[in-house]
Amino acid sequence: MSKFAAIAGIGQTEFSKASGRSELQLAAEASKAALDDAGIDPADVDGMITFTIDNSDEIGLTRCLGVKDLGYTARIPGGGAASVATIHQAAAAINSGACEVVLVWRAMNERSQYRFGQPMAPPSGGVVNIAGNGTGSLLWCMPFGAQTPASWGALATQHYMNTYGVTNGDLGYVSVAQRKHAATNPLAWFYGKPITLEDHQASKWIIEPVLRLLDCCQESDGGVAIVVTSLERAKDLKRKPIRIVSSAQSIPAEVEVISNYYHADLNVMPEAQGVAKRLYQRSGLTPKDMQLAMIYDAFTPQVLYQLEAFGFCDQGEAKDFIKGGNIEVGGGLPVNTNGGLIGEAYIHGMNNITEAVRQLRGTASNQVAKMTNALVSCGMAGAILSNS
Amino acid sequence: MSKFAAIAGIGQTEFSKASGRSELQLAAEASKAALDDAGIDPADVDGMITFTIDNSDEIGLTRCLGVKDLGYTARIPGGGAASVATIHQAAAAINSGACEVVLVWRAMNERSQYRFGQPMAPPSGGVVNIAGNGTGSLLWCMPFGAQTPASWGALATQHYMNTYGVTNGDLGYVSVAQRKHAATNPLAWFYGKPITLEDHQASKWIIEPVLRLLDCCQESDGGVAIVVTSLERAKDLKRKPIRIVSSAQSIPAEVEVISNYYHADLNVMPEAQGVAKRLYQRSGLTPKDMQLAMIYDAFTPQVLYQLEAFGFCDQGEAKDFIKGGNIEVGGGLPVNTNGGLIGEAYIHGMNNITEAVRQLRGTASNQVAKMTNALVSCGMAGAILSNS
Repeated sequence: MSKFAAIAGIGQTEFSKASGRSELQLAAEASKAALDDAGIDPADVDGMITFTIDNSDEIGLTRCLGVKDLGYTARIPGGGAASVATIHQAAAAINSGACEVVLVWRAMNERSQYRFGQPMAPPSGGVVNIAGNGTGSLLWCMPFGAQTPASWGALATQHYMNTYGVTNGDLGYVSVAQRKHAATNPLAWFYGKPITLEDHQASKWIIEPVLRLLDCCQESDGGVAIVVTSLERAKDLKRKPIRIVSSAQSIPAEVEVISNYYHADLNVMPEAQGVAKRLYQRSGLTPKDMQLAMIYDAFTPQVLYQLEAFGFCDQGEAKDFIKGGNIEVGGGLPVNTNGGLIGEAYIHGMNNITEAVRQLRGTASNQVAKMTNALVSCGMAGAILSNS
Repeated sequence: MSKFAAIAGIGQTEFSKASGRSELQLAAEASKAALDDAGIDPADVDGMITFTIDNSDEIGLTRCLGVKDLGYTARIPGGGAASVATIHQAAAAINSGACEVVLVWRAMNERSQYRFGQPMAPPSGGVVNIAGNGTGSLLWCMPFGAQTPASWGALATQHYMNTYGVTNGDLGYVSVAQRKHAATNPLAWFYGKPITLEDHQASKWIIEPVLRLLDCCQESDGGVAIVVTSLERAKDLKRKPIRIVSSAQSIPAEVEVISNYYHADLNVMPEAQGVAKRLYQRSGLTPKDMQLAMIYDAFTPQVLYQLEAFGFCDQGEAKDFIKGGNIEVGGGLPVNTNGGLIGEAYIHGMNNITEAVRQLRGTASNQVAKMTNALVSCGMAGAILSNS
């Protein structure tokens, strides 16, 4: 699976809090940038993949770009869970022969046009349309006050923290490491703005005793796009191809998006374990083969869960693994070297994929030495990317 | 493309006007029926594909069925344009190695819970979310009264009818042929209820002078599901595998869903021409190799456009092609032998795929003799299915 597909181009807009233009405009700018980066004419795009909840219409975007004849158009459910799944499915479309050039995009005015992190009410009246959000049982939680992604995630995390003696102070190490990366990444919203553990502890509670403000990702405006094509075609293009060595989704039974209350062991993230199993099986690689992990970090605890699920440390040991600079550039396993969704921007996970590509090209602001393989995970999906 | 994928099972609920149960229940019943038909345990499903606008949540459905670990989940934009695209993308997922068993479903209470054919207002207030409907420019038409799919389609069709001298009376031949098929198909809503050309002409205008009531598909409640797996695996299952010989989507520049006002020649359906080109190129087959055409028939004129686009007759000649029993069982090219969306039910195109499977298995109520290949088209997507 995926051994013939490669990322040929990446593109983005600036990441801001008020883009001042439409989401379709952001999608088009990021897409054009990615195609230019690859050196591919928009007319050659024959596949398009995005999130179910992206507000831009495929046909509107083809019109903006000059796409000539689209032969594959898919959307992936589940919020940020869709992010790495986009390149998984793009690789499948390429490897099957259904497409030659797949454009993946996600663009949102998620700070200026609406607020992703604010409390939401359960749908009322008419058809209750939660299709493809993977959060069906949340309808039973919302009336009791669980109305934000932060509150959904924190509920399960309390059990994990209790089991392994993790405090909110421990979580601060993730924030500090990522803000350190963001501080030296000019693409990041928090460029030039590192924080200390004291800053983290002084930030207000969002969901006590789990999440403080500085445990949470940003709300951002911006767009990101990625061009996937065959390795063969990518070899003749402008950039060194970044191979999608293996890719996978995993949604095990009783798992839901952010609100994993119903599976057997609340100390683990079964979807990430499922992705890890598939990625390593399909590639023959192991955690030790990765020089970088880009891990979906809507909230700091998710980084701990995923470090364990992907076998970078043993169960319950992530709280120690993240300390002492181990997840910083120069450490044992650099994580989210762009600053992640906490430090760079929250483009729903997509900007963690583009950072992996920059690292593998050797063009990252916080470049990791001797890059060969990068793991990218959004929990329900993941990929191993390689420059070799 | 698609030479290794096959349809191993089909399932459905009854087709009605008031199912009396939820859409998720319908989805689950149809899915279980399809898996039982194939002889596949729900636990083995690792891919799920549906429409962006299907109201059932993947995770809710996995819970109903007992799916163990989902590894691929996609939704396809564009209304009925998604129907044949589901098996196109399922085939891609199988052929790429990303999945082993893909469950495709579509379930709707589109008559009892909401009304698909009724006038709709443009979205007002908040985010204008038309994402993935492929009908962006309709926002400019709706304020002027173009508020139903019937009115959108009829606007472009007037030009076609004027060019080739097609009258509404001509369109009646499609309705009469399909209702004849429905009359002898116990699965059809209009089982036992054939109509005459006089009945067609006596039915009320919906959009004068293009569409009468009997030119329009039904509003139906019901669910349909299809199981796609590798040809190799399908060979060991209960049913004779129906190969997906070739499959394709096509959305050429300036084409929109039902509302094709902006492309160069309003006398043709460029998306169906694009699908035809890809299907024949990928398979090496020609129109003459098809013993059956299952053609998306939300409205009768769409059948004429597609007969021409797929090369079953020359441009402008469909109005004669459909006469004299030529598109009935026993005729030159049987079309929509289940009664189609007009006669059997409107499960958004999916029940036209299952009829092709029944015909290729030799189990259709209105069985076509010597079936080898069937064309299935929904305009923006198509497939050639084969029992050989």
